[in-house]
Amino acid sequence: MSRSIRLAVIPGDGIGQEVVAQGLKVLTAVLPQDVKLETKEYDLGARRWHATGETLPDEELESLKQHDAILLGAIGDPSVPSGVLERGLLLKLRFAFDHFVNLRPSKLFPNTATPLAGRPDIDFLVVREGTEGPYTGNGGSLRTGTPAEVATEVSLNTAYGVERVVRDAYERANARPRKKLTLVHKNNVLVYAGHMWKNIFDKVGQEYPEVTTDYLHVDAATIFFVTQPERFDVIVTDNLFGDILTDLAAAVTGGIGLAASGNINPTGAFPSMFEPVHGSAPDIAGTGKADPTATILSVALLLRHLGFEPQAARIEEAAAADLEARDGSARSTDEIGDALAARVAG
Amino acid sequence: MSRSIRLAVIPGDGIGQEVVAQGLKVLTAVLPQDVKLETKEYDLGARRWHATGETLPDEELESLKQHDAILLGAIGDPSVPSGVLERGLLLKLRFAFDHFVNLRPSKLFPNTATPLAGRPDIDFLVVREGTEGPYTGNGGSLRTGTPAEVATEVSLNTAYGVERVVRDAYERANARPRKKLTLVHKNNVLVYAGHMWKNIFDKVGQEYPEVTTDYLHVDAATIFFVTQPERFDVIVTDNLFGDILTDLAAAVTGGIGLAASGNINPTGAFPSMFEPVHGSAPDIAGTGKADPTATILSVALLLRHLGFEPQAARIEEAAAADLEARDGSARSTDEIGDALAARVAG
Ligand SMILES: CC(C)[C@H](C(=O)O)[C@@H](O)C(=O)O
Ligand SMILES: CC(C)[C@H](C(=O)O)[C@@H](O)C(=O)O
Repeated sequence: MSRSIRLAVIPGDGIGQEVVAQGLKVLTAVLPQDVKLETKEYDLGARRWHATGETLPDEELESLKQHDAILLGAIGDPSVPSGVLERGLLLKLRFAFDHFVNLRPSKLFPNTATPLAGRPDIDFLVVREGTEGPYTGNGGSLRTGTPAEVATEVSLNTAYGVERVVRDAYERANARPRKKLTLVHKNNVLVYAGHMWKNIFDKVGQEYPEVTTDYLHVDAATIFFVTQPERFDVIVTDNLFGDILTDLAAAVTGGIGLAASGNINPTGAFPSMFEPVHGSAPDIAGTGKADPTATILSVALLLRHLGFEPQAARIEEAAAADLEARDGSARSTDEIGDALAARVAG
Repeated sequence: MSRSIRLAVIPGDGIGQEVVAQGLKVLTAVLPQDVKLETKEYDLGARRWHATGETLPDEELESLKQHDAILLGAIGDPSVPSGVLERGLLLKLRFAFDHFVNLRPSKLFPNTATPLAGRPDIDFLVVREGTEGPYTGNGGSLRTGTPAEVATEVSLNTAYGVERVVRDAYERANARPRKKLTLVHKNNVLVYAGHMWKNIFDKVGQEYPEVTTDYLHVDAATIFFVTQPERFDVIVTDNLFGDILTDLAAAVTGGIGLAASGNINPTGAFPSMFEPVHGSAPDIAGTGKADPTATILSVALLLRHLGFEPQAARIEEAAAADLEARDGSARSTDEIGDALAARVAG
């Protein structure tokens, strides 16, 4: 465990700035005195793009590499054409830093509202592939804007890319008490990619005899997310299916305001990046209504990744206790941040 | 309205046979005396494939064309490699008969169990594109089974294909009291296909000034399906997103046992095909536990498509009344079919 953290901070757009401020507040409060925290803020997102036309200049990318980790708020604004910042900034970072494990835990905390009747016991982890699939930007449009237009999107999948994320998921499943891993794909239709995923899943599974496995088509998986979410322990899935499933998972575990994520490069070759699953929520930006818990829980994932396990656990316990204590009265972004900072320091 | 119906019947696999029998029972009961119903059964599915290696021979395809409509039970069995029957039979029919409108209504009937707390008011219609997107079978695998394998799946989208389904969705939205149409895609990542969809959606929308429109990314849409399903009226979406969303929709409206669908060719050039959204459920095949309501409601869609509106409505009212009257005691597939046949005849 290193005794200093060089942290790159990308607040981004909308509520990004507000929630990241709380994340940093809690990070500072939880770190031992002798750990030096150096942060560097990057002005990236809609403002920058409007001002300069840049999404992520090469120098910034190089500079970001010099950090131990990245904390990101949220990217995207209605004033920017859809896809520009997502592809040019967020996905560019995930791909450039080879964040092949997109880690998204889902847990229904006590005293947290869920749209599901009967409050099932939810505690699972989605390991979403982060560098392949339909997210590679491989595709095109011919005769754009005419009645003869043809547009393609190519999902690219490699054994190299699938095996490494599948192996990571087995490791994580093996380390959990239930030791269960579910592959989600759509191999009855997407037969090329789907069969490759399934074959690799089965092959790697032979190295983990203690892990129970099963397979679900993505459409069936969404059913179980709402009817029987307690059946899941660890899920491994493709980039796009993981995107869809983790928003649904966030919805059933108390909402997108609580869902944390880590874009992880397990090799350490590049910094990993931590961000809430939610977006920039321009409709509530500046109102103090954003719940910073998702960002603060992402800071816990960041600490765990950097080897600060006790501090990570402290944040997670604090978040659970804070949720447990909520009485339904409205608190501002700042007040929630303060409450969590006080709990982790105490 | 024709006074005879030439109906092709494909019971298929698992519970397919059982639920289709009930669909035919109710169809016979609801049809006026002077309408001649001619049915022809096709032996297609797992049994046939094991016996002959065939999924859908050309002669069968030609023969199916001679009908006014097709009623299909379910396709798929664990003894057949995943994809063989789906691609070789079910999708082959959808593509060969140009079923570009895959119609999937979702309604939460009174007295029906939903996993959602608070019982929201759900009554929406998904218009799923049925002949393009990631379902075209366009893709491949290189160095299959080796550590150097690369597998692709190509989503093919044409302005021709998107415009016709979008227009159909506007027509349906315009004919409903709320007149609201939501496009679901992922145009911040799948920028080529996504922008084409959005541009065509906006352009066709100018012809329907009374229809209110909005756009949601597919991940966000899944959140609203569980937190605010009442916000939806008509949804139009891509083949794969529609697959995922309609299973989720079925789950929140009382389960896959109630979800009907129609694979429609609105031009009438080829027969349209009606089937429950659920699969062949081999685990309960032969036990009499399958709920035939989804198939019976698919028969209602079939009748509406052929111009028998009063009979279609009669079936839907019967299903609603039957669900309302259910007291939780178990009834067999056959008993539910009998009950509905009695209601529509009465
Ligand atoms: C903003 C978007 C590009 C992103 C994604 O699709 O991955 C988001 O939805 C997420 O889940 O992190
Ligand atoms: C069986 C499968 C090919 C099919 C699909 O993906 O369309 C099914 O899930 C459906 O929704 O009708």
